[in-house]
Amino acid sequence: MGANEKWAATTRTLLAENRIVMLNLIGSPGAGKTLLLESMVEHLNKEARFAVLEGDIETTRDAERLDILGVPVSQLLSGGSCHLEAKLVNHALADFPLANLDLVFVENVGNMVCPAEFDIGEHAKIAVLSVTEGEDKPLKYPLLFREASAVVLTKTDLLPHLTFNLQACRDNIAQVDASLPIFEVSAQTGDGAQAFTEWVLQQAVGYRSA
Amino acid sequence: MGANEKWAATTRTLLAENRIVMLNLIGSPGAGKTLLLESMVEHLNKEARFAVLEGDIETTRDAERLDILGVPVSQLLSGGSCHLEAKLVNHALADFPLANLDLVFVENVGNMVCPAEFDIGEHAKIAVLSVTEGEDKPLKYPLLFREASAVVLTKTDLLPHLTFNLQACRDNIAQVDASLPIFEVSAQTGDGAQAFTEWVLQQAVGYRSA
Repeated sequence: MGANEKWAATTRTLLAENRIVMLNLIGSPGAGKTLLLESMVEHLNKEARFAVLEGDIETTRDAERLDILGVPVSQLLSGGSCHLEAKLVNHALADFPLANLDLVFVENVGNMVCPAEFDIGEHAKIAVLSVTEGEDKPLKYPLLFREASAVVLTKTDLLPHLTFNLQACRDNIAQVDASLPIFEVSAQTGDGAQAFTEWVLQQAVGYRSA
Repeated sequence: MGANEKWAATTRTLLAENRIVMLNLIGSPGAGKTLLLESMVEHLNKEARFAVLEGDIETTRDAERLDILGVPVSQLLSGGSCHLEAKLVNHALADFPLANLDLVFVENVGNMVCPAEFDIGEHAKIAVLSVTEGEDKPLKYPLLFREASAVVLTKTDLLPHLTFNLQACRDNIAQVDASLPIFEVSAQTGDGAQAFTEWVLQQAVGYRSA
């Protein structure tokens, strides 16, 4: 077992001891990961105690956006690295009062490739793909879609202005993993955010009772 | 000198012997790199003999799109790697009749982070950023913008439907490198493609006479 896997296992034990479920959001720069979290805050706040680990190469902008909304947030700077490593995530979790949390979201570094390769001790990876990126991406970057437990298609409000073929995208995702649930979300209009939030909460119950 | 740097140097010699200029296009998945190349074909065909190396993790879709337009294209599959390495690029150049070329574009793997770290023997890196990705990206992923010789802002036809602040994006790019030329392009409408193509041709003349 490599160093990263050892730290991921340590994190899994820590999360289990505190009955916390951790989800790892992965997608390209600008896929809308932070906006997705912002759009879930109000609904989530009623149902669960949650915190966010913000992974970035540089800047603390995303963390500030969530901090303004009153979300407990810890900023991880990856030091130039293209993905978050399990050790860094494990240490960052110490920033939170773990006994008072149900759910931790990790927003990984904006990158569709490398973060999919690294276990950080999460219960599930969530692929975040904006419709502006094109319907071919699940076939071109299949590892993320093989590793993910769900796909969130973001920026659906832009569909009328794009040549994006939604059915082709669904077919391409199904070609990689036919059982993957797909959520279509516009954080701009709010459409779909509730359905994804409810799925997250259901998953959390499931992982906790497993 | 590491193995990658040695292969990059070998490629530079090969390009110099054949008086070929090589440009390395780098941007996120779905930033519009292939569409940018497609929109330049007609104009470029009148002025230069060019070919494209298509870098992908999986699928040959981008290469097929350019092949249809009659562009000499070679598909590089990175074997799961998040960036192209100099050795792979050097070997792929052998697919082309180098004595009959003026210009080679390399479309790197869709990733704003890792490809910026690897010299493949190119004359210049070009950062491709779509306006749907957000104006903060030059500050969040500064290495690409430090390494690049120009920025192409793509999908500008979508600006009326976005909250994207063009001036803030320009300021953020300037904060990383104030001398970087910025080209605003909509491959959908064709706006801006000619200005960028002319810049590419000028650069090629400059590199060749250097």
